[in-house]
Amino acid sequence: MATGMDGNSSAVRELIEQLARLPGIGRKSAERLAFHLLRVSESEALALAEAIRRVRESVGYCQQCFNLAEQERCEICLDPTRDRSRICVVEQPRDLMAIEQAGVYRGLYHVLLGRIAPLEGIGPEQLTIEALVDRVRNGAFQEVIMATNPTVEGDGTALYLSNRLAECSVEITRLARGITAGSILEHTNREILVDALSGRQRM
Amino acid sequence: MATGMDGNSSAVRELIEQLARLPGIGRKSAERLAFHLLRVSESEALALAEAIRRVRESVGYCQQCFNLAEQERCEICLDPTRDRSRICVVEQPRDLMAIEQAGVYRGLYHVLLGRIAPLEGIGPEQLTIEALVDRVRNGAFQEVIMATNPTVEGDGTALYLSNRLAECSVEITRLARGITAGSILEHTNREILVDALSGRQRM
Repeated sequence: MATGMDGNSSAVRELIEQLARLPGIGRKSAERLAFHLLRVSESEALALAEAIRRVRESVGYCQQCFNLAEQERCEICLDPTRDRSRICVVEQPRDLMAIEQAGVYRGLYHVLLGRIAPLEGIGPEQLTIEALVDRVRNGAFQEVIMATNPTVEGDGTALYLSNRLAECSVEITRLARGITAGSILEHTNREILVDALSGRQRM
Repeated sequence: MATGMDGNSSAVRELIEQLARLPGIGRKSAERLAFHLLRVSESEALALAEAIRRVRESVGYCQQCFNLAEQERCEICLDPTRDRSRICVVEQPRDLMAIEQAGVYRGLYHVLLGRIAPLEGIGPEQLTIEALVDRVRNGAFQEVIMATNPTVEGDGTALYLSNRLAECSVEITRLARGITAGSILEHTNREILVDALSGRQRM
């Protein structure tokens, strides 16, 4: 326990430090959140601590589609009611979540865990592209839907993938441009996603 | 582990729920923070969980001034270099922190843990007012500085306290009111200008 410049105990100071490391949380917000966590019931504060601990201890990647999963396979891959003739390719688990929340797609997914970004030194080999090619080559998919972000890098990744998958007898589509170029998929609302899914076009 | 509407495992869903309970954190922000906590190193994520746990296990109120403390007395009450002739009265520990960060006050504090708010049913007996009166009555303070918030309720609380402390031979002051440094006079409201004019000082 050390005396600081702000009259706080070291435990309070440490909590503020940790909260301020979160994206979009500035110093003042971190202080406000720390005092909130001191004011609420102990069970509510500890529920957040426990949720963080549990998510890091129990959540990994699905060995088939690379969605987040608490077992070897994720909820969606294990779900017998999903349409196994379609596979939707997304960059990140949060993109998958956005599409699931729209509630209009019932097929499977493949999460790339990134996109091809030459300027950042991210090539195809750092993504889950080989696993996708294997799935499509060995599976009975009728359609692969490209749902990468509508950015230069997302489009480039989709184009690369459609070339890689050209040999497979599978229809390759991409989301319709109901989504606006330059936007970020996880911030897209349901209406836009419904338009984009229902209007998807042949690549 | 239950299947939800969003393709997430229950651990991820629970973390999003818990984050969305924080003040100023909406659903989308909670999702963004959750995926951030999944992406960073395990040690960074667990450091936040541990900071929350530690703050709730080890932090209580100082038995003298009701600042946050990890022992019976807070850092400031224990600090032998503080000026023990002055006591600054604030509503909450975070107000104390703001004053400490300014670095211009070296006296002691008293935290009321709220303010008198009749409309919310908060009366003097729910605050630490009796402890303050005892401290001032039995102590050797020369000055009590009212630093409650400049609101109707904060001002009312300061007025109530100055009446309660009138019997003690102690000078009672309050924070200066006026225009804020760096502000623009034409955007200043009437109340601020009334304070600034009535409190004007010789140059």
